[in-house]
Amino acid sequence: MRILLINPNTTESVTALVAGHARAIAGDAATFVPVTGRFGANYISTRASAAIAAHAALDALAEHVAGCDAVYLACFGDPGLAALREISPVPVVGMAEASCLEACNRGRRFAIVTGGALWGPMLSEFVAWLGLAERLAAVRTIAPTGDRIARDPEAALAELAAACTACAVEDGADVVILGGAALAGLAARIQPSVPIPVLCSVEAGTRAAIAAAADSNRRVASPPTLDSVGLGPDLTSLLGQAKSK
Amino acid sequence: MRILLINPNTTESVTALVAGHARAIAGDAATFVPVTGRFGANYISTRASAAIAAHAALDALAEHVAGCDAVYLACFGDPGLAALREISPVPVVGMAEASCLEACNRGRRFAIVTGGALWGPMLSEFVAWLGLAERLAAVRTIAPTGDRIARDPEAALAELAAACTACAVEDGADVVILGGAALAGLAARIQPSVPIPVLCSVEAGTRAAIAAAADSNRRVASPPTLDSVGLGPDLTSLLGQAKSK
Amino acid sequence: MRILLINPNTTESVTALVAGHARAIAGDAATFVPVTGRFGANYISTRASAAIAAHAALDALAEHVAGCDAVYLACFGDPGLAALREISPVPVVGMAEASCLEACNRGRRFAIVTGGALWGPMLSEFVAWLGLAERLAAVRTIAPTGDRIARDPEAALAELAAACTACAVEDGADVVILGGAALAGLAARIQPSVPIPVLCSVEAGTRAAIAAAADSNRRVASPPTLDSVGLGPDLTSLLGQAKSK
Amino acid sequence: MRILLINPNTTESVTALVAGHARAIAGDAATFVPVTGRFGANYISTRASAAIAAHAALDALAEHVAGCDAVYLACFGDPGLAALREISPVPVVGMAEASCLEACNRGRRFAIVTGGALWGPMLSEFVAWLGLAERLAAVRTIAPTGDRIARDPEAALAELAAACTACAVEDGADVVILGGAALAGLAARIQPSVPIPVLCSVEAGTRAAIAAAADSNRRVASPPTLDSVGLGPDLTSLLGQAKSK
Amino acid sequence: MRILLINPNTTESVTALVAGHARAIAGDAATFVPVTGRFGANYISTRASAAIAAHAALDALAEHVAGCDAVYLACFGDPGLAALREISPVPVVGMAEASCLEACNRGRRFAIVTGGALWGPMLSEFVAWLGLAERLAAVRTIAPTGDRIARDPEAALAELAAACTACAVEDGADVVILGGAALAGLAARIQPSVPIPVLCSVEAGTRAAIAAAADSNRRVASPPTLDSVGLGPDLTSLLGQAKSK
Amino acid sequence: MRILLINPNTTESVTALVAGHARAIAGDAATFVPVTGRFGANYISTRASAAIAAHAALDALAEHVAGCDAVYLACFGDPGLAALREISPVPVVGMAEASCLEACNRGRRFAIVTGGALWGPMLSEFVAWLGLAERLAAVRTIAPTGDRIARDPEAALAELAAACTACAVEDGADVVILGGAALAGLAARIQPSVPIPVLCSVEAGTRAAIAAAADSNRRVASPPTLDSVGLGPDLTSLLGQAKSK
Repeated sequence: MRILLINPNTTESVTALVAGHARAIAGDAATFVPVTGRFGANYISTRASAAIAAHAALDALAEHVAGCDAVYLACFGDPGLAALREISPVPVVGMAEASCLEACNRGRRFAIVTGGALWGPMLSEFVAWLGLAERLAAVRTIAPTGDRIARDPEAALAELAAACTACAVEDGADVVILGGAALAGLAARIQPSVPIPVLCSVEAGTRAAIAAAADSNRRVASPPTLDSVGLGPDLTSLLGQAKSK
Repeated sequence: MRILLINPNTTESVTALVAGHARAIAGDAATFVPVTGRFGANYISTRASAAIAAHAALDALAEHVAGCDAVYLACFGDPGLAALREISPVPVVGMAEASCLEACNRGRRFAIVTGGALWGPMLSEFVAWLGLAERLAAVRTIAPTGDRIARDPEAALAELAAACTACAVEDGADVVILGGAALAGLAARIQPSVPIPVLCSVEAGTRAAIAAAADSNRRVASPPTLDSVGLGPDLTSLLGQAKSK
Repeated sequence: MRILLINPNTTESVTALVAGHARAIAGDAATFVPVTGRFGANYISTRASAAIAAHAALDALAEHVAGCDAVYLACFGDPGLAALREISPVPVVGMAEASCLEACNRGRRFAIVTGGALWGPMLSEFVAWLGLAERLAAVRTIAPTGDRIARDPEAALAELAAACTACAVEDGADVVILGGAALAGLAARIQPSVPIPVLCSVEAGTRAAIAAAADSNRRVASPPTLDSVGLGPDLTSLLGQAKSK
Repeated sequence: MRILLINPNTTESVTALVAGHARAIAGDAATFVPVTGRFGANYISTRASAAIAAHAALDALAEHVAGCDAVYLACFGDPGLAALREISPVPVVGMAEASCLEACNRGRRFAIVTGGALWGPMLSEFVAWLGLAERLAAVRTIAPTGDRIARDPEAALAELAAACTACAVEDGADVVILGGAALAGLAARIQPSVPIPVLCSVEAGTRAAIAAAADSNRRVASPPTLDSVGLGPDLTSLLGQAKSK
Repeated sequence: MRILLINPNTTESVTALVAGHARAIAGDAATFVPVTGRFGANYISTRASAAIAAHAALDALAEHVAGCDAVYLACFGDPGLAALREISPVPVVGMAEASCLEACNRGRRFAIVTGGALWGPMLSEFVAWLGLAERLAAVRTIAPTGDRIARDPEAALAELAAACTACAVEDGADVVILGGAALAGLAARIQPSVPIPVLCSVEAGTRAAIAAAADSNRRVASPPTLDSVGLGPDLTSLLGQAKSK
Repeated sequence: MRILLINPNTTESVTALVAGHARAIAGDAATFVPVTGRFGANYISTRASAAIAAHAALDALAEHVAGCDAVYLACFGDPGLAALREISPVPVVGMAEASCLEACNRGRRFAIVTGGALWGPMLSEFVAWLGLAERLAAVRTIAPTGDRIARDPEAALAELAAACTACAVEDGADVVILGGAALAGLAARIQPSVPIPVLCSVEAGTRAAIAAAADSNRRVASPPTLDSVGLGPDLTSLLGQAKSK
């Protein structure tokens, strides 16, 4: 099975980080095709950069999806998730959605911890859009954004663990998601000092993407074709034809 | 990994049916220990029989959980799910909860089709309790209960497919769960005549149980000990001591 | 009028306590037939013991309901309430449901105070199931469970009064329910030090049971008959036949 | 016990009708002091007339509440209920609120049937204000308003019964309230042709008023005093002083 | 265009204050016809006085609406708004509703600050009735009622500014409404010390009233005619005939 | 006052159509600077094209906002609205948000009619995100998308009027929005055959944009600066600096 791993952040080192974790989990079960966004912010931490990332993810999908069995949108916040599903010939898994659903399987109320204060309201709105607001105990953010955490994880571990613990003690969460492509692998490191299970969003998304790639029931709905201007050639072409089935 | 598979229906043939499907999915990944409820209705189709089944499931868990890595409560409706989790030393997966969460991974709105009219309001209340009411498109039931369907599946296939199709066409569901221990394997048979993916609840629960058994983050909360009278010896003992960790 | 008073706790002294209060309220208006659960926890304070109590209450109803005009399920939390209603030939009143509805008649927002920390989420979920979540200001628990309070009420009065007062002052409740079979009669004792009305759940349930017994409009819906194994003879029989009307 | 029965409709015959039913239910348990609104619509069937009725009810309460143990606001829709409670020295029971709460005691989902199409949205909003929207199955109205039904009940019985039956069969109600002062006593007449219990709102309100009058826990909150112009002398006086306690 | 400006407070100086602000905003765009309630509280600060004000507003509308193009109900809390709309031949704008909608245009979550503690729950219920509860961050009140603030604004400015700032800092509001006829013009004075936009409710209502008067699409629904007793002659007449169109 | 009018559809004729209507409404009150998206679908009718349009709108804002007093995002559906607000130095008005808020001012429940079936769920989710779901009666779509309607309005008028009427008669709407940049001006044409007011979304947005441009209270929050690759030079620059205030 081949899985297209789209990192709509435009930082190659984050793509490599996520791909490494995904391959460690998948073993022989799947092959990953990692792609970095052609344009957009180095690291998504605002509404504007997330909006641009949705376009970049569509662009990447159009160029690279051929021959893949599933798409893994590897940015916590899932920019453009519903749009990708609309045009994709294969299942699309979002890192944040998959993490939230796995969290629901692990406890009655889940929380999210991530880097970058602006993600707070963005993720609350995302969970509401998912229809999971009743299961959400809290979203807590720490000041440094994910790319800064990735450059110096040691400096952030204590603060991340404190935020996760606050989700348990003050917000009543049963499980907490450590969200963000750039935070891959940190969940295991802070788990010993957090009283509830800590999920790694990169790993949760990987598990869901593998399951989706193995899923033989494909959707068949297809959007109408669209003429467009100024887009990448593959995206222009994909919008201009009925979705493959 | 060993998984305790509790069928709180008191019909051995249903236990065997579910265990067969679980083993086919797990392959070498897990060993199943199937147990049938010691007391209660032959097939659960009412609130009274579901209430009794919660006790029977607790009783079965207390007697057989030693040495297992997870518990699979294999009755769609998950009688006693929260109570089992309270006293269990290992993770507990409910067939209906696991199916609903997998369905959320597969589509925006899911529906449930099962046998036995009384399950309609019971399952709607269950999904509300899960906090997933916004994701639920509909619960549709056909008149024969699961045990009758299991005895003559051919007679029910057309009616089940029609109900699943109605969930898509009339209720707007993106995915439908065919719920019920006794309906194991029928999803694949009706899929060709249903326009949306049909999930088999037995298989969805099995996948979640295998994942839970592999889960190394165990919960540590422990309820207070309780004195009791008139219960089975293992349940008496389990209630009377702190939960293993 | 005869009212079957089921205490699904297995402690006889609690049954006697509740029956005494019920008789004091009813005077000549009704005769009570008190029954103690045949099996289960001495005092229900966990999800597991509540699940078992639902079975015990069904068992007690089946054995003793003949000749009664109503059933009073005298455990705050109402284990098995909907299941009892399903099989009962006469109206069934739950202590917690009746208390919540009487509280709605007495103020815009009500609160609940009881003993045993695990009852907190259990009662919040119960009120949500009732559809009364908008009216609930808070559930507050004190550490000792009801049976301990019953053995030494003096020791708990100050803590109960403080919790009730906090419901008024901090949570904005207009009325508070002192919930629990074992707390019968304590509401009147703490009322002088609480700034809002304190309802005794045992008394509220008694009033509702008397009203229900006088109710000449009986429900007629009847569940399907069920075969079963390993249950008490009366419950086996009641499940195996259409409900009396 | 003395209960002030306020009919804020300005039709004396409706006051007499309600008082007659209330006395039949109360027997020796309470004495009723019936009062008709001094001003306003002959029969309330619009938002404007309900708004005026709130003032008329305040006016009547101010003039007649002295010496009473409770107030029964005997108009289905409860115009001014919260305002009356604000200034009243004794408990105030509203006919619609009391009916809805009694209905919750009698079934999981209740419906309302009344006369006059404009009452539909008004009563839906009222139930939402009560916080009981989840329990409401439907509000159904028939074209003739209550006063017309009171003048020729025979002509309306079939239509009322059909509406109540539709609440059960189409809306899934477990119990239905026949609402309206002018419909006193009709519930019993249509019950034989309706498959679920039919509550008479006048009787439900009476039962709640008797219970409230017997209630020894009085509220103590008192609104600030207000200067006013152009109101009746008793209302002017009542607004201008601290509420009696 | 002529706009009927109804102040249902019975204090002429408040009417003059509001009319002055309205005229300053409208310039030549509209002419205002200010009317003070004939009866009721000098300044509305309780549920009882608000209920009476609804009647007074209906009375004023009936007497003065002829020849006007819109009605501006100039009391924050909008007593009788839906009732006025029912009988009015021209559009009716409520000060609080118009302020809340303008606030939604200015920020994602709005707050309300006003004078008089009893307005807190009244305004929360009003916003819920509007269907805007999700957009409301908080209602905060200061102790002095509007009429007291109008008599000595200097004394209240600091407290009002502090409450508005708390709405931003503690409640997360993006914009705050300074509500109350008697607070006309104070928003501009406290704006410099508040970190989010402060809307003047009198001005927001004026803008909406001007827009409504210019609105050529008139509603045509008409309530049934009603006989009544004891009301003012114009209101009697208006209730007794079909609404003008 | 200068208002930047962004049409993120890439069809110049639609930009001209909207600008013409905006100028007719504004008269001398404002000058419009119309801009068409540099890239994206000719006409937005899917989730993918809407996601790309958000980027195009950000790009257009960055290039042209200097010297403007407000931004009017003139595409019904408001692609990127929150992102534009994040980076814009002046207020941003969305056509759909402004239309929904004006509709709330005009009736209790509003509906939306537009062209293109895929807009149905997209607009329902948008209204939920606005927090106005309780006010929404229905979203109804007709098959032709806006650009097709713009090319031959006569062919669509009857179908649009029928959909608007259905919103009133079947869905209970008090007012209906005719949504879509390409439908500018059609509301007035179908109004005579629709029983409730029909709002033109282009005109409602224009009114709100003029009001916003006149608004002297500017927001001051500023997002963090972001490095990016592959974006237009002005957008790169705007993301890379603190927002102007």
